[in-house]
Amino acid sequence: MIVDCALYRDGSRVQGDHDLQAMRARVQQPGDFVWVGLYEPDDEEIAQVADVFDLHPLAVEDAVQAHQRPKLERFGDMVFLVIKTLWYVDADDAVETGEIAMFVGEDFVVSVRHGQGTELHTARDALETDHQVLGHGPGGVLYAVIDRVVDEYLDVVDELVVDVDEIESSVFSTDRTNDSARIYVLKRELAEVRRAVLPLREPVVRLASGDVPAVPESATPFFRDVSDHLARAAETVDSLDGLLSSAFDAHLAQISVQQNDDMRKISAGAALVVVPTLIAGIYGMNFRHMPELGWTYGYPFALVLMAAVAVGLWVLFKKSGWL
Amino acid sequence: MIVDCALYRDGSRVQGDHDLQAMRARVQQPGDFVWVGLYEPDDEEIAQVADVFDLHPLAVEDAVQAHQRPKLERFGDMVFLVIKTLWYVDADDAVETGEIAMFVGEDFVVSVRHGQGTELHTARDALETDHQVLGHGPGGVLYAVIDRVVDEYLDVVDELVVDVDEIESSVFSTDRTNDSARIYVLKRELAEVRRAVLPLREPVVRLASGDVPAVPESATPFFRDVSDHLARAAETVDSLDGLLSSAFDAHLAQISVQQNDDMRKISAGAALVVVPTLIAGIYGMNFRHMPELGWTYGYPFALVLMAAVAVGLWVLFKKSGWL
Amino acid sequence: MIVDCALYRDGSRVQGDHDLQAMRARVQQPGDFVWVGLYEPDDEEIAQVADVFDLHPLAVEDAVQAHQRPKLERFGDMVFLVIKTLWYVDADDAVETGEIAMFVGEDFVVSVRHGQGTELHTARDALETDHQVLGHGPGGVLYAVIDRVVDEYLDVVDELVVDVDEIESSVFSTDRTNDSARIYVLKRELAEVRRAVLPLREPVVRLASGDVPAVPESATPFFRDVSDHLARAAETVDSLDGLLSSAFDAHLAQISVQQNDDMRKISAGAALVVVPTLIAGIYGMNFRHMPELGWTYGYPFALVLMAAVAVGLWVLFKKSGWL
Amino acid sequence: MIVDCALYRDGSRVQGDHDLQAMRARVQQPGDFVWVGLYEPDDEEIAQVADVFDLHPLAVEDAVQAHQRPKLERFGDMVFLVIKTLWYVDADDAVETGEIAMFVGEDFVVSVRHGQGTELHTARDALETDHQVLGHGPGGVLYAVIDRVVDEYLDVVDELVVDVDEIESSVFSTDRTNDSARIYVLKRELAEVRRAVLPLREPVVRLASGDVPAVPESATPFFRDVSDHLARAAETVDSLDGLLSSAFDAHLAQISVQQNDDMRKISAGAALVVVPTLIAGIYGMNFRHMPELGWTYGYPFALVLMAAVAVGLWVLFKKSGWL
Amino acid sequence: MIVDCALYRDGSRVQGDHDLQAMRARVQQPGDFVWVGLYEPDDEEIAQVADVFDLHPLAVEDAVQAHQRPKLERFGDMVFLVIKTLWYVDADDAVETGEIAMFVGEDFVVSVRHGQGTELHTARDALETDHQVLGHGPGGVLYAVIDRVVDEYLDVVDELVVDVDEIESSVFSTDRTNDSARIYVLKRELAEVRRAVLPLREPVVRLASGDVPAVPESATPFFRDVSDHLARAAETVDSLDGLLSSAFDAHLAQISVQQNDDMRKISAGAALVVVPTLIAGIYGMNFRHMPELGWTYGYPFALVLMAAVAVGLWVLFKKSGWL
Repeated sequence: MIVDCALYRDGSRVQGDHDLQAMRARVQQPGDFVWVGLYEPDDEEIAQVADVFDLHPLAVEDAVQAHQRPKLERFGDMVFLVIKTLWYVDADDAVETGEIAMFVGEDFVVSVRHGQGTELHTARDALETDHQVLGHGPGGVLYAVIDRVVDEYLDVVDELVVDVDEIESSVFSTDRTNDSARIYVLKRELAEVRRAVLPLREPVVRLASGDVPAVPESATPFFRDVSDHLARAAETVDSLDGLLSSAFDAHLAQISVQQNDDMRKISAGAALVVVPTLIAGIYGMNFRHMPELGWTYGYPFALVLMAAVAVGLWVLFKKSGWL
Repeated sequence: MIVDCALYRDGSRVQGDHDLQAMRARVQQPGDFVWVGLYEPDDEEIAQVADVFDLHPLAVEDAVQAHQRPKLERFGDMVFLVIKTLWYVDADDAVETGEIAMFVGEDFVVSVRHGQGTELHTARDALETDHQVLGHGPGGVLYAVIDRVVDEYLDVVDELVVDVDEIESSVFSTDRTNDSARIYVLKRELAEVRRAVLPLREPVVRLASGDVPAVPESATPFFRDVSDHLARAAETVDSLDGLLSSAFDAHLAQISVQQNDDMRKISAGAALVVVPTLIAGIYGMNFRHMPELGWTYGYPFALVLMAAVAVGLWVLFKKSGWL
Repeated sequence: MIVDCALYRDGSRVQGDHDLQAMRARVQQPGDFVWVGLYEPDDEEIAQVADVFDLHPLAVEDAVQAHQRPKLERFGDMVFLVIKTLWYVDADDAVETGEIAMFVGEDFVVSVRHGQGTELHTARDALETDHQVLGHGPGGVLYAVIDRVVDEYLDVVDELVVDVDEIESSVFSTDRTNDSARIYVLKRELAEVRRAVLPLREPVVRLASGDVPAVPESATPFFRDVSDHLARAAETVDSLDGLLSSAFDAHLAQISVQQNDDMRKISAGAALVVVPTLIAGIYGMNFRHMPELGWTYGYPFALVLMAAVAVGLWVLFKKSGWL
Repeated sequence: MIVDCALYRDGSRVQGDHDLQAMRARVQQPGDFVWVGLYEPDDEEIAQVADVFDLHPLAVEDAVQAHQRPKLERFGDMVFLVIKTLWYVDADDAVETGEIAMFVGEDFVVSVRHGQGTELHTARDALETDHQVLGHGPGGVLYAVIDRVVDEYLDVVDELVVDVDEIESSVFSTDRTNDSARIYVLKRELAEVRRAVLPLREPVVRLASGDVPAVPESATPFFRDVSDHLARAAETVDSLDGLLSSAFDAHLAQISVQQNDDMRKISAGAALVVVPTLIAGIYGMNFRHMPELGWTYGYPFALVLMAAVAVGLWVLFKKSGWL
Repeated sequence: MIVDCALYRDGSRVQGDHDLQAMRARVQQPGDFVWVGLYEPDDEEIAQVADVFDLHPLAVEDAVQAHQRPKLERFGDMVFLVIKTLWYVDADDAVETGEIAMFVGEDFVVSVRHGQGTELHTARDALETDHQVLGHGPGGVLYAVIDRVVDEYLDVVDELVVDVDEIESSVFSTDRTNDSARIYVLKRELAEVRRAVLPLREPVVRLASGDVPAVPESATPFFRDVSDHLARAAETVDSLDGLLSSAFDAHLAQISVQQNDDMRKISAGAALVVVPTLIAGIYGMNFRHMPELGWTYGYPFALVLMAAVAVGLWVLFKKSGWL
């Protein structure tokens, strides 16, 4: 689906039209460029776009198929970028991933989006009001999109920080919690984020270094800023992963400690029953000469003895921390 | 065994013949080349091929013996590549490995295949219909073979993803599963894949960089694409390995939690027997003055008391989660 | 809030005034410079400063928002540095973090501080008495601030060394301690410190190498010294983290050993009750011909037998280390 | 002990003699060289050799003392190589290490061997029949020795692969095996191999790159081949080490699972005794009105009841997998 | 304290005197140099030395304060080296650390020692008899000191190897040992050694590469030798650390196995008591018709039955390995 297609000149939107061929023909002055936005295009649409802008077949293939790695490729003067989008689904505490592929030439940008995250329509609206960034031409569009995507990485990471905090509380609560499944799932989410963030670092560093044709020298500080945000996301993810590993270890220790506590509680409880049973056994012996058996209050005495021993043991275990 | 031997000119198959000497003699124009395909050749066959194409003895030795590391070697103008093939055997959830060695000269390609995986006959058929790639000459054949092999890596990796998902479900199921053996076996399979994938990355990067004589500049984007697929395979394998380690840890935690649950269940069950035993012991004492013993309904009373205590304990343990 | 603003010439404070525009105008000779110190400035204040010193908007944005990564950026002749401040709060054994951003131009320094740590007022006072360092100009101020911050890193690290020593004693004490929560928290603090220290290493190395415009060649040994302190902090943090991991492992082992000891103690204790119960059961049997039952001292004999067996077992278990 | 000393010319052995001085004097044409083979020489022998071939004292010291690290040193035109030898002792499943030091000059090779492994006499015999390799001069000898040593690394690694397979079977067998000691010992053997293999990689890469004076350009493919074998050995060792770690984890899990199984078996067994004891206790109560006590078949009834309960429990536990 | 101060010429000691100013004045010919040895100097002493040899204040500060990192700094023509000394205290199996700082100029060496280890007096004596090394001038002194220190590293490492061997024996002995504390302490010692060894590698490599002014080209093989020893120390430390981790894991496994063994022993022991108790309970039942009760030998029969059952169980458990 062609979402939008517009011509930009001197940092402003000039005209929008879905007839790509006509739009490209209107590119006349240096600095003019067309931005075509596609969402999960079918084969015909992408073929038409590839034809109009003369895109390399290998890049087109990558743009159509989702599940690519983030990467930056140069085909002559054209730059091809694949970037993963991430968003956090509150309902099931999960991180979902989509993809944006961008073809950036001297006078055009083609963006191809897959999945629901990081919708580009508002990004385009915001950019159209920011004439300074838009004035950098196709490189400005590239920056705006990457910046938007990376900002959403940071949002996702912030959600994960909250999740790790929750797990932490759960692990160290006195409740009998089984946190290993949750830790596992969160580790998998972190791995998901890492797969989006890490391979993007090298492309962004290259963009920030200024040796990519689409990015004018004046735009490099913007990409350095993105690179910095990306580094922050990566560091936080690594740090969370380390914390989760430690939290898991602590969880294991808690299980062991709890088992030990339980074992001691059980043993103490057993003692409260077993010792009176011994007393009952003693007074159940059949010796002919057992003075207590003849006492009027022998039976209450035995019961009191059992109770006293049980209470005594209970106090003892309570004091020593076994109960 | 010589599987096939053909002369290619301008991206098309010209002629096929098993007489290597004659075939090579037919190479006349620049761009002509012969592709000889061997399958587990015996000494005589390989000696003949080595003689016709003047192959370096060390490379020939490596091509004959299986169990080499993936590598790319230059011998003057000739390039020698060893690549491992992988395939997944559904029957026993195992990854099997074979090997392809390729000698790529200016006007010839010799491929030597070992093991059952990644059969090259269909690869040759497919290539013969793709005149664009075949037009790149021996480098195009090299690409076609590597691309085919790496695509099968991705297939194998996809199967392993499924296996890891199964283990995940098994670990976190409430069933009493013993997953450590399966995790171990899968880790060994991943190590197998890693041994094929990792050493291949450097050769493919060199091919993509264009400083290998057999690969024309125009063919480098194809190898960059392969390099990207390889990186994806490597990343997925690493990620799976990390997940398996986490899954194993979670499995250990599950075992501990289960042991604790079992211990508490056992203890609660024991209490249901031991406390009535104490009561029976009490009424088995031989005191002369025990009013209950003389009651008409003393015996039923005692039985009801035991049952009541047992039921009471059962409710208590049920409520506290011990049963 | 503008904390202080002063003009420096030849290594001495010349004049202080909060009117930035006027102050900058007074910069006349080469070597003159203005140092403006801000504390958590509001938007208006920072806008005014940015205007007077012509600061890059991206850097200004980073300076206002806290939670940046430590970094060194060049914008033309100006250098922009972000550095994290750390301080140790005794009350809750926690490491807190703040931030200092510095803009260093040829004739000015603007420092922006966030959070309570590493207050710069005393750093300025100290620097104003050290004409040698101040004589290096803006680079000298940069050094003075970084040096102060890094010295406080070392203080924080020293506190953490003490905490690790305490944990060590606790883990290996014979008391029944639950150290996993404390180890976890300390690991999190170390991760906090690492996030401040590690990304700063590369900026300081660049400052020490002398290829940063604000730092004259003669000042590089000072930055090498800072780099060295930073390396020391990083090494100690790594070393503490490794020790904590080992301590955690040892803690797990202690738990297991203790559980084993407890189990054996419990079993030995149980034996002291269960064996006499068997004896009581034997003399509770209803055989007609049991000579002991008719003995005058049969009952005392049975009690003594029980006591003797219990004592005997106690001695046995004591000797074998089970009690 | 001087094992052998011979003059080589044009790839063939010309003459053998133990008088080193005389032998060296016979070196007349370019390409002539002497190969002296020493086995654990005493001080006098090595001093004589050092004198004849003008060896650097530091290298001589290293060659005499065993327990050096593998390394390649250049002293002017001379190359000094230390390489560790490995061999597998079947009797005690252990890897033993020796050492070979080689001095390689323009017209001589001095090899000094320590320990029993990788005896060089047969290597010399084999080399003397391989005129092509021998024709490369001292560099050919160097290759032949390193190749022989590295081939034995691969043999040792193959033995260790077998050992790991055995441990694997043992860990996952249903027998109650205690594999931790064996895993530990094997890990130590692997560390031994790694200490021989890893430091050798850099020297061999340097030899293969052709910037070592003793190695002519034409001989570099041979060293690349050795480098490849070395890489294979290193990868296999790493892979085995990882497998052993996983196997150890699995072993720990097996122990836990077994403990759990045992605990449940014990508990089920206990129930078979405890519940009948309760029944016996009930019929041991002294109530005046207990109809069963008067039944003619009361006693057999009680015994049958006990047996029935025990059998019932046994069936129950069997079904639920506890027995 | 000034320990010694002497003038050296042509590899020999010429004159010793504690008047530094005078000594330095006696340096006349190229190659002459003064070596001043200080032990934990007070402020006045170091100030005097700094004044005579024109030492950089930052280096002087580092030399006075202990607890620096090993490092090599260049201040113009002067080289400043900090190196940690290690020694093993047998009494408490601990590694202690000291420090040596050296200022090496064209015509002087100043060594400043802290702590008890690696006393330099004997090093100076030995050097004064080794005219060859001393002939390399200040660089020779530098070598002699570093070589001495690194040799002591190797001694310390050898002691640690012995400690690890002891722990190994203890872990795998059948005794009930608690090795986790010892393993922990040894890991801490290894970390201590690593902190001395690792940061020294880069300085020594720089010294061996010959781009340090104080070290003449001819002296570089000596530093390569030191570098090699350092690498050996580092490798051994890493290897020991890995072994200790494995040993700790094995220790954990042993604890678990032992707990399992104990649990089974306890259960078997309990069965020997519980089953006879059931028999006693049966003959304690009050049925009117129990033929055994009337037998003359009923009581002995019951006792024998109990004993027989106990013996039977004992044999059974013995056979199945539970006792």
